[in-house]
Amino acid sequence: MSGDWLDEIKWGADGLVPVIAQEESGKVVMFAFMNREALALTAERGEAVYFSRSRNRLWHKGEESGHVQQVKSIRTDCDKDVVLLTIEQVGGIACHTGRHSCFFNQLHDETWQPVEPVLKDPKAIYGK
Amino acid sequence: MSGDWLDEIKWGADGLVPVIAQEESGKVVMFAFMNREALALTAERGEAVYFSRSRNRLWHKGEESGHVQQVKSIRTDCDKDVVLLTIEQVGGIACHTGRHSCFFNQLHDETWQPVEPVLKDPKAIYGK
Repeated sequence: MSGDWLDEIKWGADGLVPVIAQEESGKVVMFAFMNREALALTAERGEAVYFSRSRNRLWHKGEESGHVQQVKSIRTDCDKDVVLLTIEQVGGIACHTGRHSCFFNQLHDETWQPVEPVLKDPKAIYGK
Repeated sequence: MSGDWLDEIKWGADGLVPVIAQEESGKVVMFAFMNREALALTAERGEAVYFSRSRNRLWHKGEESGHVQQVKSIRTDCDKDVVLLTIEQVGGIACHTGRHSCFFNQLHDETWQPVEPVLKDPKAIYGK
């Protein structure tokens, strides 16, 4: 948990930093948040660990679904207040809806239209 | 400024939504915010208009530098609380440091190392 590189990140007032996860193809699959511990663990383990704002705890992506994200690189931006991960998405499904990417709603004629298929029923993913 | 598609976005308490801008190659070049007016203008004009938190006003990206972003698609995620733009970056420079992308600091051996060159001196870009 020590490390100057962690101190260099401009953590928000809530202690979080926004994180973009993209595959090596360039496909952006997810957007979430990390706190300092989550980013340290992500670097240490080589698997994405986020901070879930809704559950108010660390969230090892894939802990329930098995859809972990293997981290290939960690970048930050000019202001060091955003993190960009390059990941390999195990199972090919990042979204809790069972889609490849969370960014499946595209604007067409002033409506949001789903442009990616559901690859697996969420009930089958989460066993609920 | 009207439109149900704008109402569907889950605007933050500050009236903003985070926005990721990526090129058609998949390269993520920027992260910023939009308010409702900015997103409406972005869709209407086909050029990215953000809301600058530091200047507290609409920010037509490229208004000073000429490095506008031509919008190819607008997506939102499963929760409709993040926007993903596919853009063509005019001038090939998105970052105010004169680099292609803002995400030029990569973690190596617990230090952030710049992995993208400065393509143009910011003084030459902004004439300051």
